[in-house]
Amino acid sequence: MLVVGIDPGIAITGYGFIRLLAAGRLEAVDYGVIRTDAGMDLPRRLAFLHQQLAQLLAQHRPEAAAVERLFFQVNVRTAMSVGQASGLVLAEAAAAGCEVVQYSPNQVKQAVAGDGAADKGQVQRMVQALLGLPAPPRPPDAADAAALALCHLAAAPLAARVRAAVRGGAW
Amino acid sequence: MLVVGIDPGIAITGYGFIRLLAAGRLEAVDYGVIRTDAGMDLPRRLAFLHQQLAQLLAQHRPEAAAVERLFFQVNVRTAMSVGQASGLVLAEAAAAGCEVVQYSPNQVKQAVAGDGAADKGQVQRMVQALLGLPAPPRPPDAADAAALALCHLAAAPLAARVRAAVRGGAW
Repeated sequence: MLVVGIDPGIAITGYGFIRLLAAGRLEAVDYGVIRTDAGMDLPRRLAFLHQQLAQLLAQHRPEAAAVERLFFQVNVRTAMSVGQASGLVLAEAAAAGCEVVQYSPNQVKQAVAGDGAADKGQVQRMVQALLGLPAPPRPPDAADAAALALCHLAAAPLAARVRAAVRGGAW
Repeated sequence: MLVVGIDPGIAITGYGFIRLLAAGRLEAVDYGVIRTDAGMDLPRRLAFLHQQLAQLLAQHRPEAAAVERLFFQVNVRTAMSVGQASGLVLAEAAAAGCEVVQYSPNQVKQAVAGDGAADKGQVQRMVQALLGLPAPPRPPDAADAAALALCHLAAAPLAARVRAAVRGGAW
């Protein structure tokens, strides 16, 4: 199963394509960031993000996309700006045929570091360890995106079992 | 010159394609709304909006898109939701090759009704009168979108003259 984690932002959007192999082994297929030029106007920055993301999704064809859920405690201006990038990312992932699931930062920290209050450094070191990388993915936005994908890979088997049980009438 | 006005929203996005003909005459080429199904999940609603908008832009090929500028006095949850639709719309219009300009609600009211504090009804009646329609466009989101296009058509000639003057060193 190939999952892409995406941490949306207008200036920088992190992505991490992680594959779950047989026997629970994990492979970091591709990770990095899409940066947009602060000198371009907003519509062009968004169009560039859109085009780059569409290209990555077409190249790797993930089955699922784990996207950071918008965080409501930020200020209104930040909310709009992050919302603009998030809207694009959600639409593009759905259009690419992915199952799209949103996770909060706390869910990601809990899944990857076993602690919903883990700090950035802990999460990055866990991402490095789980993926067997020589160093944490850089920049941090790429590590955050990889953590989102790992969170989905941790959550998906349980969610699938719950759905199967509900369908089977066991619950 | 063909301009599309777009009033973005996840549930309902208004659009109005308005052409400026010779001698300042205006033609309502196409207007209406894109509605998304509240029963679908957010990524699919955004993907549907994206696909419908791309189709309209490909059909009409406007030179410019006038998009409602996000309004900062709303609450954070609304800001994110409107931001998600707005991000999509801005990216899609830029990708379609449009000049993309954002206008605030007050700028639109000032341009169309001559009063930045005009109410919805006044704006709708002015849209109807300017476009020579038998009734205001319905639903109101379509009228708001048409008003955005009219605002751009009113502002664009002056903006072009300013740009030309700046290039020409007159200012």
